Amino acid sequence: MPRPLNVALIGTGFMGRAHSNAWMSVNKFFDLPLDAVMHTVCGSDLEDTRAFAERWGWGRATATVSELAADDEIDLIDVTTPNDLHRAHAVAALAGGKHVACEKPLAGTLDDARAMRDAARTARARGTRAYVWFNYRRCPAVAYAHGLVAEGRLGRLYHVRGQYLQDWGGPATPLSWRFDAARAGSGAHGDLNAHVVDLACFVTGDEITEVTGAVETRFIRERPSPGGGTGPSTVDDCVGFLARFRSGAVGSFEASRLATGHANSNRLEINGELGSLSFDVERMNELEWFDNTVDAGRRGWTTIMCTTAGVHPYVEAYWPPGHALGYEHQFISQAADMIREISGGSAVVALADFDDAYRTQRVLDAALISARQRQAVSLDDPEQ
Amino acid sequence: MPRPLNVALIGTGFMGRAHSNAWMSVNKFFDLPLDAVMHTVCGSDLEDTRAFAERWGWGRATATVSELAADDEIDLIDVTTPNDLHRAHAVAALAGGKHVACEKPLAGTLDDARAMRDAARTARARGTRAYVWFNYRRCPAVAYAHGLVAEGRLGRLYHVRGQYLQDWGGPATPLSWRFDAARAGSGAHGDLNAHVVDLACFVTGDEITEVTGAVETRFIRERPSPGGGTGPSTVDDCVGFLARFRSGAVGSFEASRLATGHANSNRLEINGELGSLSFDVERMNELEWFDNTVDAGRRGWTTIMCTTAGVHPYVEAYWPPGHALGYEHQFISQAADMIREISGGSAVVALADFDDAYRTQRVLDAALISARQRQAVSLDDPEQ
Amino acid sequence: MPRPLNVALIGTGFMGRAHSNAWMSVNKFFDLPLDAVMHTVCGSDLEDTRAFAERWGWGRATATVSELAADDEIDLIDVTTPNDLHRAHAVAALAGGKHVACEKPLAGTLDDARAMRDAARTARARGTRAYVWFNYRRCPAVAYAHGLVAEGRLGRLYHVRGQYLQDWGGPATPLSWRFDAARAGSGAHGDLNAHVVDLACFVTGDEITEVTGAVETRFIRERPSPGGGTGPSTVDDCVGFLARFRSGAVGSFEASRLATGHANSNRLEINGELGSLSFDVERMNELEWFDNTVDAGRRGWTTIMCTTAGVHPYVEAYWPPGHALGYEHQFISQAADMIREISGGSAVVALADFDDAYRTQRVLDAALISARQRQAVSLDDPEQ
Amino acid sequence: MPRPLNVALIGTGFMGRAHSNAWMSVNKFFDLPLDAVMHTVCGSDLEDTRAFAERWGWGRATATVSELAADDEIDLIDVTTPNDLHRAHAVAALAGGKHVACEKPLAGTLDDARAMRDAARTARARGTRAYVWFNYRRCPAVAYAHGLVAEGRLGRLYHVRGQYLQDWGGPATPLSWRFDAARAGSGAHGDLNAHVVDLACFVTGDEITEVTGAVETRFIRERPSPGGGTGPSTVDDCVGFLARFRSGAVGSFEASRLATGHANSNRLEINGELGSLSFDVERMNELEWFDNTVDAGRRGWTTIMCTTAGVHPYVEAYWPPGHALGYEHQFISQAADMIREISGGSAVVALADFDDAYRTQRVLDAALISARQRQAVSLDDPEQ
Repeated sequence: MPRPLNVALIGTGFMGRAHSNAWMSVNKFFDLPLDAVMHTVCGSDLEDTRAFAERWGWGRATATVSELAADDEIDLIDVTTPNDLHRAHAVAALAGGKHVACEKPLAGTLDDARAMRDAARTARARGTRAYVWFNYRRCPAVAYAHGLVAEGRLGRLYHVRGQYLQDWGGPATPLSWRFDAARAGSGAHGDLNAHVVDLACFVTGDEITEVTGAVETRFIRERPSPGGGTGPSTVDDCVGFLARFRSGAVGSFEASRLATGHANSNRLEINGELGSLSFDVERMNELEWFDNTVDAGRRGWTTIMCTTAGVHPYVEAYWPPGHALGYEHQFISQAADMIREISGGSAVVALADFDDAYRTQRVLDAALISARQRQAVSLDDPEQ
Repeated sequence: MPRPLNVALIGTGFMGRAHSNAWMSVNKFFDLPLDAVMHTVCGSDLEDTRAFAERWGWGRATATVSELAADDEIDLIDVTTPNDLHRAHAVAALAGGKHVACEKPLAGTLDDARAMRDAARTARARGTRAYVWFNYRRCPAVAYAHGLVAEGRLGRLYHVRGQYLQDWGGPATPLSWRFDAARAGSGAHGDLNAHVVDLACFVTGDEITEVTGAVETRFIRERPSPGGGTGPSTVDDCVGFLARFRSGAVGSFEASRLATGHANSNRLEINGELGSLSFDVERMNELEWFDNTVDAGRRGWTTIMCTTAGVHPYVEAYWPPGHALGYEHQFISQAADMIREISGGSAVVALADFDDAYRTQRVLDAALISARQRQAVSLDDPEQ
Repeated sequence: MPRPLNVALIGTGFMGRAHSNAWMSVNKFFDLPLDAVMHTVCGSDLEDTRAFAERWGWGRATATVSELAADDEIDLIDVTTPNDLHRAHAVAALAGGKHVACEKPLAGTLDDARAMRDAARTARARGTRAYVWFNYRRCPAVAYAHGLVAEGRLGRLYHVRGQYLQDWGGPATPLSWRFDAARAGSGAHGDLNAHVVDLACFVTGDEITEVTGAVETRFIRERPSPGGGTGPSTVDDCVGFLARFRSGAVGSFEASRLATGHANSNRLEINGELGSLSFDVERMNELEWFDNTVDAGRRGWTTIMCTTAGVHPYVEAYWPPGHALGYEHQFISQAADMIREISGGSAVVALADFDDAYRTQRVLDAALISARQRQAVSLDDPEQ
Repeated sequence: MPRPLNVALIGTGFMGRAHSNAWMSVNKFFDLPLDAVMHTVCGSDLEDTRAFAERWGWGRATATVSELAADDEIDLIDVTTPNDLHRAHAVAALAGGKHVACEKPLAGTLDDARAMRDAARTARARGTRAYVWFNYRRCPAVAYAHGLVAEGRLGRLYHVRGQYLQDWGGPATPLSWRFDAARAGSGAHGDLNAHVVDLACFVTGDEITEVTGAVETRFIRERPSPGGGTGPSTVDDCVGFLARFRSGAVGSFEASRLATGHANSNRLEINGELGSLSFDVERMNELEWFDNTVDAGRRGWTTIMCTTAGVHPYVEAYWPPGHALGYEHQFISQAADMIREISGGSAVVALADFDDAYRTQRVLDAALISARQRQAVSLDDPEQ
C-alpha cells in the first residue's frame, strides 16, 4: 500500500483544472510508490475555491496562501498563479520544505527567475525538489523524439526550428492579465516561446549560446476592456528570433497569438545529417521521422503513431495502440514522474527543474534584448 | 447538490478501465443533475476485482454478478463482459429495474440481440433505460458531422464509406476469446463493423435496407495458444460488404484486423450533392469537410479542428481550442449524456439504445448471410 | 541517328492532345532507337483537324480513317476515339500491319474486346504490337510500387482496395457521348474502374478470380441536352464491387463520378503481411509505404517523393529530385516504352497489351452481371 | 497566322532543357499573337551544343555568344548561364535591342545586379523588355494566392514565412560552380532565398524594408573534387533572416541545402487578419487556404486543388480538373506571358522584371551584411 503524497494546489483556473485532473488520475493509470492525495486547494475567492474543491475532490479549500507553506501535512505545492506571483509562492514553499511544481514560464522577469533558481538550489541540498510544468516533454511523441536524438539517430544536427502559433489574440480579444506587461512579463514570448525553447533544448540535449537576431511586435495596442471601453495591450503579440546552439546547429524560434489558422500549433523540426524529426502538438500522437539511412527509393517522412506500449514512453499506462491520448495525459505523466523522483526513483524522461527553466528564461530575455538593441546577443559567457 | 446515481460495473478489462475512468471523471467536467457514484465492481476473480476497486475508487468489489440486479442501492449496471454474456447480464439487470449501459456489439448472435431488444422495450415502458456504448458518436468531430448532415448541408447523399481497419491480428497474435466464434460470435465483423455501421447510420440519419454483396475471410486459421502449441482461430479476420440505404445512397463497409499500417483507423466518408465529410478516429480531433457550395476557386477539403467551445459538441467541458481530446473523452461524454437522459433531460446527440443496436446487428447478420450464400440480402421487410 | 517511327493519331479531343504532346516530347526526354514522327492526324471534321495538325506539328491531316491502315508510310496507329469505335479502328489497323496504341477501356462491350484481343494475337504472330494506354502504370510511384511487390516486400497480400473517384457528373453536367450507353458501353465503370482494375492487377501481379458482389447505380437519370431541354443519361454514375484474387487476397473496387470533393482521385491501397502501399493520383509524385519489418517504435506510413533519378522509374529522363512530374509524363513515358519494345528492346515496366486489357474487361463485365443478378460471379473458369 | 518570335538560348544545362521545353510547348498549349521559333542555341562546347540543338529542335547551334546580340533575326535572348555571366550576356543583349529572359538570381553581386537593372531601364525606354525567370509566380496555386491577397481576402497581414529547403548539399556532394563563391556569389542564399523573397513580395504585393537579423552558416567547408581529392566549399549552406515589411508585417526567411528530408520544399505561409495561405512546391497543385470569416464550426485549412479551368490561372491551357501539372508548366506559362507582353498584351500575373529582381537582390545582400555585422540592416532609405 503506497504512502500518501499530500498535494496543495494554488490556483483554480484552466491550469488548476488540468493539474487537478492529473493528481486525481495519476495513481489510477500508474503504479507508483506514493499515492497522490488532493489535500488542499487555494484560490483568491474562498467560495469559488470551495466549489472547486468539492467538484474535483480536494480535501480542503482556503484563500490564505501563506497557510500552505506552514502546513506540516503538505508535501508538495503546485503553483498555477500568474507569472508575477510565481516567485513569492515558490520561494515560500521551498523555504517551508515543500516540493514545488510550478507552471511555466518560471517567472515574469529574469530577476525573479534567478531568485527562484537560487532558492531551488538551496532547497535541493536539503532533498527538496522544484519542478516546472513543461508538459510537452511528456507527450509520448516528444519523449520518443528525445530518445532518437540521444541514440544518435539524427547524427550531426544542422537545423532546429521551433514555432508556437496560436490565433486567439486578434483585435477583438478583450484585455486580461495576459495582455498586461506588469502581470505577465511578456505576451506570446513568455507564454509560448518558453515552451518551444524548452522543447528544443530537451529534444536536442543542446544549449542555445547566441541569439543572432530577433523581432518583437505589438500589432494590437488597444483592446476592449471587460468592464467597457478599451485599454492598452502592453505585451508582444509575436516574437521571432534566430539562434545558434553549442553544437553549431542553427535555430529559429517564433511565438505568435496572431497566426490565423493555428489554434495551438506547437511545432518542432530538427534536421540532422542522418535523419530529421518533426512534431506538431495539434497532432500530438504523431511524430514525423525521416530516416536518411534508408535506401534512397524508400526514404521519406514517416508518420509514427506514437501509441505502441513498451516502445513509446508512457502509453502503456493508458490505452491500446492507435487510441489517441489527449492534452491532459502530459500532465498525468508528469505527475507520475515527479512522484517517482520524489520517492527516490527515476523519471522516464528528464523533468525540467528550476535550473533548466532559468536557462530558458535567459534565452527569452536575450531575445527581447536583441529585438530592442537590433543586434546579436551572446549567451556564451559563464552562466550567471 | 446533485443526487447520487449508483453505478455497478461488470468487467475489469480494457473496457472496465475506460468506463471506470468515465464514471470517475464525468461530474468533474460536466455540470449534471445526478452525481455518478462508483458503487460496486464485479469481476470473475475476487482478489483481482478488489485490487481494481481500490485502484479506481469503486466502493465495493464482488465476484457474484447476480447480486447486482438484486441490490436495491444500485441504479445502473454497466456491462463490459464478452459478447456471449451480454444477454444474460443485461436482461437480468433490466428485469431488476436497473438502467443498463452495455458494451457493443449488442450480442454475439442475432437471437440474443433480439431478446435484449425486447427486454429493453418492456423495461422502457417502466422508465428503465438501456444504452449501448457506441462511443464514437460522442467524438466531437462525429457529433458535429451528424449535425451538418441533419442541417442538410450535404444535400442528397450519394456515397457512404465506412472502414474500421486494424492490424493487430497477424499470424503471431495468440488465441483469446476474441478469436473463438463461440464466445465472440464473429471477429473483426462484430467488433469493428458494429462501430462503423452504427456510425454511418448515426451520422447520416439513414438506414441500411440491403446488403448487396459481402465477402468474409479467415486468413489465419491457426494461432499460438497462450498455454503452448497452437489452436484454431474460428472467427473472420475481415468482412467487407456493399449496401444500399433507404435514401438511395450506396454504402461500402469493411472491417479488418489484418490491414497492415492501420493501428486503429475507424473511418467514415460521406459524399453528398452539396458537400462531403470524412473522418478517421486516428485523428479524432479533426473533421474533413468539403463544401460544394463555395466558389469554385476556393473549394477544397477543409480540416476542421473540432475543439471550439460552444460550437463543437462536448468540448467546452474540457480544454481550450486546439488542445486535443483523447479516446477516453468519448466515454466521459457518453456517461454525461446517459445521466442527462436518466434524469429527464436530453442528450447532446442521440444515444444508441437497444433498438438501434439491434438494427445494427441485423445488418451485420445479413452481411454474413450474404457472404455465405453469395447473393444479395434484403433488409427491407417489416423489421422482425 | 535513329530511324523514324511514323505515327498516325485518330482523334483530336482531350486524349488527342495528351497523345500529341507525348509523341512531340518523347525523343526530347528519352534516348531511343526510333524517332517518333508525327505523320498524320485524323479527325471527323477536316478543318478542325487541319488546325489541330498545324498547332501540334502533325505532318498531315485527314478525315478519312480508312486511309491510315492503307498508308504504307505509317508504322503505328494511335486510337483515341469513343469506345464503340475502338474495335473497327484497331482491327483495321492491325490487319494493315500497323502497330496499335489504343485508349482504354479496350472496348465498349466484351464481344468487341474479345474480337480485338483475337486480332491482336493474330497480328502479334507477325510481329505487330497492340497496346492499351493504361497510362497510370508509368506514373513513377506506381511503377516503383509494382517493383516493391515483385521483390516480395509486402509478403502475403491480404487487401487490395481500388477507387477512382471523380465529381464532375452532378445533375447539372450536360449530356455527351460519355452518358450514352450505346456509345460508351458504361459510365464511371468502363471509364474509371478500367483504370483501377488494371492498376491493381499490374501492381500486385495478381488476377481477379471472382466478383463476390457488386452495386451499380444511376443517380442521375436526366441531364441537360447541349441542344436545349433534357435527355436520358443511360450509363452508371458509380459501380462498386468486391472481389477475390487468385492469391487469396480480397479486393474492393469503386468508380464514381459523384464523389463530391474528388476531382480525380485514382487510389490504390494494398495491405500485405510485411508491408502496405497506398497511392492517390492527385498526389502522383508520392507513394505511401508502410514497412512492417521496421522496429515497432519507428514504424509508420512513409511518404516517398518518387523523384529520385536511378531509383524511381522514368524520372531521370525529366527533372531533378523534388521537381514534380505532371499528368502528361505518364503518356510520354508510355510512348518511350512502346518505342523500346517495337524496336526490339524492353519496356521499363510491362506495357498493357490487348490480352491484359481483355482480362480487365472480363472483370468489368462480371461486375455488371453481379450487380444485375444480385449474386457472385466466378471468373475462375478457363479463360474464354 | 501568328508572326514569329525568334528566340536564342544561352546554356544547355538543366535550365537549358527546361527553357527549351517551354519554347517548344508554349504555342501548343496557348493561343498567342507570336509564334516562338527556336532559332539558335549557344553553348560552350560546340559539338555538345549541336547535339542539344538537334534533340530539342533548335534551328542553329553556336559556341560564340557574341553572335547572338548581333544577329538581326533574333528577337529574344534567354540567359541560363552561371550567375557571374548574367551581367555580360544580358547587358550585351539589351544593347543589341534584344528582349532578355534571364535566369534568377539576377546576378552574383549587387553591383552586377544594379548595372543590369540600369541597362534594362535604358532599354525599356526603347521598347525592349527584360525579364527574370522567377518561375514559381506562374504556378497556378501561387498566381491564385496572389489574387486572393490582392482582393483583400487576408485583410491586414501579420506574418510572412518563406522557406526553401533542400537536402542535396551534404558532405558527400562533390564540388561544382554552385559551391564556388567566385562563380555563384552565394550558396543556398542566392539560389533559394532569391526564389522565396520574390515569391513573398509577389504574393503579398509588399516590400521588405528591414532585415532585423540574419544567420549565415557554412556547415561543410571541404568537399570531394570531381577530379579527385577535396577542395574548399566557399558558399553558405544555409541563410536565415528576419524581416519587416512596409505594411508592418513581420517576415522570416530561410534557405538551406542541408534540410534533410526536403528534396525541394519551397514554402510560403502568410497569416492575415481575415485569412491565411500556405503553399509548398512539393505539392505544387495545392494551395492551403484558411478563411477566417467562415462560421467558427466549419473553419479550417482548406486544401484547394488548383486545377479548375477559368478560375485557377493558366490551367485551362493544359488538362482537365484534378490532372496534375508539373514543374515545367511554370516555364511554359511564363513563356506565354512574356510573349503576350512583348506583343503588346498583358501577362496573366505580373512578370518579374530587372527592377523587381534588383530589389530582391538588395534584400539578399542586406541579409548577408546583417549576418556579418550581427545587427539589423535597414532597406528603407531611398532606393539606390
